[in-house]
Parts: sequence; structure tokens; C-alpha cells
Amino acid sequence: MKLYSMPSSGNSYKVRLLLALLGREAEIVDVEDSSPAIATAKAEGRLPFGKAPVLELDDGRLLPESNAILCYLGEGTGFVPADPVLKAEMLGWMFWEQNQHEGTIAVRGALQFYPPRRHLATPERMADLLERGNAHLQIMENRLTTCDWLVGDAISLADICLYGYTHTAGERGGFDMGRFPAINAWLARIAALPDYKGLDT
Amino acid sequence: MKLYSMPSSGNSYKVRLLLALLGREAEIVDVEDSSPAIATAKAEGRLPFGKAPVLELDDGRLLPESNAILCYLGEGTGFVPADPVLKAEMLGWMFWEQNQHEGTIAVRGALQFYPPRRHLATPERMADLLERGNAHLQIMENRLTTCDWLVGDAISLADICLYGYTHTAGERGGFDMGRFPAINAWLARIAALPDYKGLDT
Repeated sequence: MKLYSMPSSGNSYKVRLLLALLGREAEIVDVEDSSPAIATAKAEGRLPFGKAPVLELDDGRLLPESNAILCYLGEGTGFVPADPVLKAEMLGWMFWEQNQHEGTIAVRGALQFYPPRRHLATPERMADLLERGNAHLQIMENRLTTCDWLVGDAISLADICLYGYTHTAGERGGFDMGRFPAINAWLARIAALPDYKGLDT
Repeated sequence: MKLYSMPSSGNSYKVRLLLALLGREAEIVDVEDSSPAIATAKAEGRLPFGKAPVLELDDGRLLPESNAILCYLGEGTGFVPADPVLKAEMLGWMFWEQNQHEGTIAVRGALQFYPPRRHLATPERMADLLERGNAHLQIMENRLTTCDWLVGDAISLADICLYGYTHTAGERGGFDMGRFPAINAWLARIAALPDYKGLDT
């Protein structure tokens, strides 16, 4: 397998993290934001939706979308609950992450992190992203105040998925994570997993 | 089962459409945008992420997120490919819908359709949504020019999911659908399915 992966991106990192936790290998092709490498990968048709990550299977088939790749790699492992309702709850968190969480928490970080995007970080937009992002973090905090994991009583793909951008929400996104002690305990639980791999490792 | 459903919303409609195509029944609880009914459902904790649709199972468990509900209802039916790679492709389209397509095509429609949101429809924002939405529609058009369905050679949840907001992209969103003949043929294929149910029916 070959993973087209943006080194700085939480979406790509989720997949690298799951590969590490599963003890699986893939050839990593770095396609950093605005780099010649990502332009080449796009021009060669390797990124069906124009963005990373994409998993290229050994037969050449291309799987885009970080959370779909997590589902593909996670199927049949302990990261996907066997119970159909718990599995649907897991997918619910993952769709919510792409529809709500990523659009505020990841975007607020990206507007500050990537120089070509900084002109879009108007004070009004940053304030709006902060307010809505805090509401999203509060939804996670509410769940994690009484439960160790987002779904059922075990780690699942939902946790790997939400870890991707939540663990940099303070440093990159400027969110005051001191407000979310249950999230911080959950982040620490994930970082303590055997075979855990950080964003920059 | 009980479905908390926003009558005017493509996300809620997707679930009603799949229920109809599967010949399954659910009690529909209408929770229209900005209505007292949606405020009540939120206050009673029926909408875990603060939005519709939500499927309430007979044992009281609540499943949020339209695409997670589609996966729950579709599992084991002909709408989910048995092949793991095709299933991952299906999920890829569904995550893309929530992350990219919905944020331009549905949002552009909603800014014009719902009076409380109209003040947000600035000319700059509407132009940006038009440009990005057209790029998303072109990705669908490219696929549908050579294939009848988004994944493999049969209808799947990906088609039901993308139908939700694509079929009102012209009327509500102001997109020039004359540019996308393959999408129009695909919309007609879905509308011709036995047991098809329209948004307002």
C-alpha cells in the first residue's frame, strides 16, 4: 500500500496513527500543502477529490477521504465495534467530525499555520470559528466527562478520527484547552497507547 | 423507530428516501428549522449534536448524523457493496459529501431558502460558494459521464446521500445544472426508482 499523506495535516495523520497502532506498513508519499509533490500527485490523478490523504492499494485502486480509509483499515479489528448500533454511533462521530469539528477547529488552526491562508484569517472569522469550535469541543467534553472513549467502553475509530485535529486545537487553533479537562485526559489516554505515533514522528 | 426529521432539509430527506426504497417504516417527527418542535427536541436531549436528523431506536438509543443513519439502515441490503474496497469508496463519497459538497451546495441553497439566514448571503460569499460548488458538481459529473452510479456498477448509499442536496442545487442553490448532463441523467435514474419518494411527499 502507498499513502499519499500531507505531513502537517490532521486528516493524513489520523491514517498514519491508525497504521502505527495496527502495526501495519505503507509506503508514505509526502505531499505537503502547496508543494510541487502535491501538484504532481494531482496532475497524475492520484488524488480523486484533489486532496490528501489517499490510500493507493497494491492493485492501483485509490481510496480518498481520511475517515473512509480509517474504516477500510479498521474493519475487522478491535477499533470497530461489532454491535451495529455502536458502529453507527462511531460513524456518527466521524461524519460529525468532517461536517462540524473539522470546519471550525482544523480550519482555525490552518488559517494561522499555513502562510498562504493567513490573509483569510479576519478577526470576525477567527472569532466566529472560536465560538463555534468551543461549542464542538464542549460536545466532546460532555461525553468524555462520564466515559473514557467516545463510543461504548472501548477505543474505536471515532477516537482516532477526533484525535487528529483535537490534539492540536490549543497550539495551532488557539483554543483554551484548560476549559476541557475531560478532553485532555482522553488525549493523554491516546498518547499513552502502545505503538502511538505523534504528528511529527 | 422514530425519525426526528427536518422536512425541508436534504440531510433528513436522504433518510426518508432510503426508508421508502427499503420499504421500512418509521414514525416521522417533524422538527422544522427554527420551529418550537426542534427547540423542544433539543431541550429534551433528542438531538445529540443539536441538529436533525436523528433516528431513535425502539430501545431509546439515539443515532445522529444522516450518513451514519444511512449506513445503519443500509447494512446488509443491496445499497452497501459487499466488496470492502467498493464499500470504502462508498464511504469516501459520503464523507466528501459532508466535508465538501454540503458546505457549498447545501449551504448556498440554505442561505437563500431560510429567511433567518438571508443576511449572511453576501455577494462575495455567494460567488465563492458558486465557484466551489461548481467544482464539486464537476467531480460528480466526471464520474457519472462514464458510469451510471457513483460506486461500482450499482446504486449504493453514496447515490442516496449525494442525491439529497444535488437534486435541489438548481432550484434552491442557483447552480446552472445545464452544465452537468450526466448528473441530470443520474438524478432522473434515481427519481425513476420503484418506491422513490420526493422531498415534499
